[in-house]
Amino acid sequence: MLIVMKPNSPEEYIKNIEELLKTKGFMAHISRGEINTVIGAVGGKTIDDRREFELMQGVQEVIKISSSYKLASRTFQPENTVIKVKDSVIGGDKIAVIAGPCAVESLEQLEIIAEYLNNCGVKMLRGGAFKPRTSPYSFQGLGEEGLKYLKQVADKYNMTIVSEVMESSQIDLCMKYVDILQVGARNMQNFNLLKQLGYIDKPVLLKRGLSATIEELLMSAEYIMAGGNRNIILCERGIRTFETATRNTLDISAIPVIKKLSHLPIIVDPSHATGLRDKVAPMSRAAIAAGADGITIEIHNSPDTALCDGAQSLYLNQFKELYDELKGIAPVVKREL
Amino acid sequence: MLIVMKPNSPEEYIKNIEELLKTKGFMAHISRGEINTVIGAVGGKTIDDRREFELMQGVQEVIKISSSYKLASRTFQPENTVIKVKDSVIGGDKIAVIAGPCAVESLEQLEIIAEYLNNCGVKMLRGGAFKPRTSPYSFQGLGEEGLKYLKQVADKYNMTIVSEVMESSQIDLCMKYVDILQVGARNMQNFNLLKQLGYIDKPVLLKRGLSATIEELLMSAEYIMAGGNRNIILCERGIRTFETATRNTLDISAIPVIKKLSHLPIIVDPSHATGLRDKVAPMSRAAIAAGADGITIEIHNSPDTALCDGAQSLYLNQFKELYDELKGIAPVVKREL
Amino acid sequence: MLIVMKPNSPEEYIKNIEELLKTKGFMAHISRGEINTVIGAVGGKTIDDRREFELMQGVQEVIKISSSYKLASRTFQPENTVIKVKDSVIGGDKIAVIAGPCAVESLEQLEIIAEYLNNCGVKMLRGGAFKPRTSPYSFQGLGEEGLKYLKQVADKYNMTIVSEVMESSQIDLCMKYVDILQVGARNMQNFNLLKQLGYIDKPVLLKRGLSATIEELLMSAEYIMAGGNRNIILCERGIRTFETATRNTLDISAIPVIKKLSHLPIIVDPSHATGLRDKVAPMSRAAIAAGADGITIEIHNSPDTALCDGAQSLYLNQFKELYDELKGIAPVVKREL
Amino acid sequence: MLIVMKPNSPEEYIKNIEELLKTKGFMAHISRGEINTVIGAVGGKTIDDRREFELMQGVQEVIKISSSYKLASRTFQPENTVIKVKDSVIGGDKIAVIAGPCAVESLEQLEIIAEYLNNCGVKMLRGGAFKPRTSPYSFQGLGEEGLKYLKQVADKYNMTIVSEVMESSQIDLCMKYVDILQVGARNMQNFNLLKQLGYIDKPVLLKRGLSATIEELLMSAEYIMAGGNRNIILCERGIRTFETATRNTLDISAIPVIKKLSHLPIIVDPSHATGLRDKVAPMSRAAIAAGADGITIEIHNSPDTALCDGAQSLYLNQFKELYDELKGIAPVVKREL
Repeated sequence: MLIVMKPNSPEEYIKNIEELLKTKGFMAHISRGEINTVIGAVGGKTIDDRREFELMQGVQEVIKISSSYKLASRTFQPENTVIKVKDSVIGGDKIAVIAGPCAVESLEQLEIIAEYLNNCGVKMLRGGAFKPRTSPYSFQGLGEEGLKYLKQVADKYNMTIVSEVMESSQIDLCMKYVDILQVGARNMQNFNLLKQLGYIDKPVLLKRGLSATIEELLMSAEYIMAGGNRNIILCERGIRTFETATRNTLDISAIPVIKKLSHLPIIVDPSHATGLRDKVAPMSRAAIAAGADGITIEIHNSPDTALCDGAQSLYLNQFKELYDELKGIAPVVKREL
Repeated sequence: MLIVMKPNSPEEYIKNIEELLKTKGFMAHISRGEINTVIGAVGGKTIDDRREFELMQGVQEVIKISSSYKLASRTFQPENTVIKVKDSVIGGDKIAVIAGPCAVESLEQLEIIAEYLNNCGVKMLRGGAFKPRTSPYSFQGLGEEGLKYLKQVADKYNMTIVSEVMESSQIDLCMKYVDILQVGARNMQNFNLLKQLGYIDKPVLLKRGLSATIEELLMSAEYIMAGGNRNIILCERGIRTFETATRNTLDISAIPVIKKLSHLPIIVDPSHATGLRDKVAPMSRAAIAAGADGITIEIHNSPDTALCDGAQSLYLNQFKELYDELKGIAPVVKREL
Repeated sequence: MLIVMKPNSPEEYIKNIEELLKTKGFMAHISRGEINTVIGAVGGKTIDDRREFELMQGVQEVIKISSSYKLASRTFQPENTVIKVKDSVIGGDKIAVIAGPCAVESLEQLEIIAEYLNNCGVKMLRGGAFKPRTSPYSFQGLGEEGLKYLKQVADKYNMTIVSEVMESSQIDLCMKYVDILQVGARNMQNFNLLKQLGYIDKPVLLKRGLSATIEELLMSAEYIMAGGNRNIILCERGIRTFETATRNTLDISAIPVIKKLSHLPIIVDPSHATGLRDKVAPMSRAAIAAGADGITIEIHNSPDTALCDGAQSLYLNQFKELYDELKGIAPVVKREL
Repeated sequence: MLIVMKPNSPEEYIKNIEELLKTKGFMAHISRGEINTVIGAVGGKTIDDRREFELMQGVQEVIKISSSYKLASRTFQPENTVIKVKDSVIGGDKIAVIAGPCAVESLEQLEIIAEYLNNCGVKMLRGGAFKPRTSPYSFQGLGEEGLKYLKQVADKYNMTIVSEVMESSQIDLCMKYVDILQVGARNMQNFNLLKQLGYIDKPVLLKRGLSATIEELLMSAEYIMAGGNRNIILCERGIRTFETATRNTLDISAIPVIKKLSHLPIIVDPSHATGLRDKVAPMSRAAIAAGADGITIEIHNSPDTALCDGAQSLYLNQFKELYDELKGIAPVVKREL
């Protein structure tokens, strides 16, 4: 933390800062510039709340310099984190493609989709068993039954299962069936859930909140990692802006930013970000071209009768077409698919 | 729902829309304008997902016309909802003032603050027992012990207790001690929690999420009300914008907007919105002047040593000063304090 | 400028920074903390572009510490700027009320409005002669004729005229008729216009841009002040956010923020911010209660037939009612009206 | 325009609406649903301000249905606009690459850059002669001298010149030297400038404003087109959001959205959007992969000594590398480079 004093602040104000720092266990390192005097807080502890210093007399600005995350930072670990689950790898040379329906609706539905994906060479299957819906009258998901279907189908095709866990109480259940536990955008700062996920030994796919900064996303990853679980997959899925032409604004530039700040893999969810089927392919291509480690995408054998988010689900043949396009882009970014 | 066709759309496209509407249980009401043909969907059901129609050929735009909330709307109930708890009233002629520390720290702390508030004439005491903190190393709240302290002190001064419930599993515990259960901004769309709160018989204070629209706030209120609990207090606490000079941007204009759309009382939390003590009084005055039904505000007997959010807590004497200012503004908006 | 190095950066990287600073005319002041080494750039010049340093090896973050504005800052001038024009004062004990139609439409219209205002005791008349309209087919203003009407009516009632200047080429014309030249939100960063306004000897009313930060607003004020004109009135008029219930989100908290950072008077335009007549009164009261130095407001003798922005214009009697409410709030914030 | 009445609105209110519509020259087309009655305004004129209707009794919502732009819409012209200038084509099968320094600094500088570009096969040269700078002390551009250098160099290599026009008074000058006149983001709603550009016979490159919606961008294009100039190139260059990790958030999804709404070519400026050199290549690749018609990009022979925006300028060899990557992506989106 650096405390920048206003020009010509009297010595007394500087003394006050020094003393407050001491009571908090810090040493003050004072550096007098021509315009501003800057006081550095030196010491091992971190300060929860630098606003306290902002309110003191003579203070112009208080600047945090140690980033709030450590385990998630590339400074801490320069090489990329590569996550291996069953036969799937995320964060390596190969682009990770996760696909499946918004919600698990039936065993038959999953069978059709999984078989199609398997034929394409896709080995990661997504599908929601618990659906948080805006309306209490909407389809709420099949629950454990849905998880069982996922497992049955995944076992048949040797696929990796990605599914969302909605609250701490569901973790044990999910651990029985799911390979990668997903945290939804609305739960990105559900700190209780994050803490519990730090103690499990399966990877976590952490979605960025609608109004979360990149730094906050990395802090949420840190929350999980602090518990011991280092296998975190970050996921950009659009932020809320003033533009209403798309449901959210997919922040593609978050990809190179995160690649620089963190060693964790970062994938993109173009389905939820745009909310419309015909925008999914262009944004998937953009994500991979920008250097993302993969995508997670909603597909459906019959989008028109889907119980959930049909309008943003690709038809199976559209998925195949997109998959082939991504194959064309992969070598440009020195990846394979 | 209204479906606006592009100019010169062929009859065939219009027919397709009609048929899809029928399969969804609607009647189509077609009105041919000079430029656009508009198809109205008439019928009792609501449509989850109008995007499906947006993707059909010839469609220019799909417009939702029935608002997503009903019980919360002023159309449904023209007169204001007035909530009575113990001796406190929210939504009536009297401005509601809720005050107290960010977190319950000790019985002694609560005693000092409650006595001071009681002397001012304030009868609603807030205080957090469970604290969701960004860092896992920060003070996490006293839990049930904190709730007990709140009850002990509130009983002594005949005060109403407002405290936050973090997840469904805490509802039963909170019901034993708390008079008004608060839902935090991060939980505004925790639909499972909202649903459970619909079944209790105590008022709920529902905070607007950081990136939630006013319509979404009212939809979350609807979620609770659908369960039977009609005593909802809405709370504006700042939205996330590009401006970084304040922690969030307090949306004061949400007050007259909500007053027009809904019969529910709306209060304002200037402490969390601004994050800085010296902005709390101006924004409290602004809220009351704009027609808010009350404020909820953080105060502390010793902000400098507070375990949580000291920088945004008012000193006790600052609170008294603000309280007197609000008394001056009240008659202008035809209220009392 | 402070350059924060990544933990464990080699000496070589630090040397490189030092040398680059030297070539730019700075001295490097190095302070080695336990985690980060921080390099302060000491010297009289300012650096246009600190991103250059951000791209150097080993650099974690570059922090600007001298604020970009000087003349506009309260550090430079602790006491409030009080602006006197004719009989009007802005920034003093009295709340400034500027009112009038969106556009000057005719001499008769102005006469009715000015007489009414004068009877209320309001001495500052606004009205647009040049109207920037979204559609090329909309009413574009009366031009110089409108300015003449303004002057004729203002002379009769001894009122101060506020009117917008759209580009540098209109300054000379406006100087003949107008007392306070207004810069619209879209022109807040029209640097050429700002520069020219620095050389005139009449006050400038500078509106905050839709997506401008408070710091940028103060930098634009600085641009004018650098030319010699110190009489700048700042005006908050709403920022663009994700919320669509109001045209813009009026940032009331900007008032106390600006009051702390700058000595310049700050007024509020609730008409353009909300865009709807029934929100104007609540937001005007909120602005004054939060400590604004005044308001500028659109009124019309016949809003229903107004040629411009009728929907956000108050009826004359609504204005009177609001004026009386503001009189009630003024003493609470130690002001008069 | 559709006027949606509140449920159970009395006939009297509906009558009032009908009458107001008549006085405005519209016919009312009433359609009575089970919940809401909807009144359609039928007739040839457009309504400037639908807020007037929003304020009437019984009105729930007023919905605009004719889009505000016509000439720019794909409904009006289904096939893509292809713009040809000298040997350059924008909007056709070939991806358009515009490159050059932020500001023209000297003839030598331009020579080096143009020769390099020409060797790469790039035939469109950008460079600013008039620079709007935040600080009055920064380099303001070479003015006409800069334009002369551009022309001299472009003639030598048979290149097309793209340069910014800052205000109407500069149009004549620019017409002498420049092939494509650029309108900067801050001028996107400078309606006077737009109008004048409607009368020239050279293409206009129109940049999206920082806080402009896609619809507003298309309306600004319409403004120019209404004057007769149909050769408009749209340019996405980032929008302002709450995220501060990049200067702006490049809205890549605007590309497929605009492609659907309009027939005009859309290119992307990754240099200004991100503000940092190392983000330019990933975002350029993303833009092309998402279907953009081209990019405009800042390069410099010596970014470290550039007089303007050096930190976001690519080194010449970095540009070559990026150019080759784009060549790899082009066939995936059925384009050439």
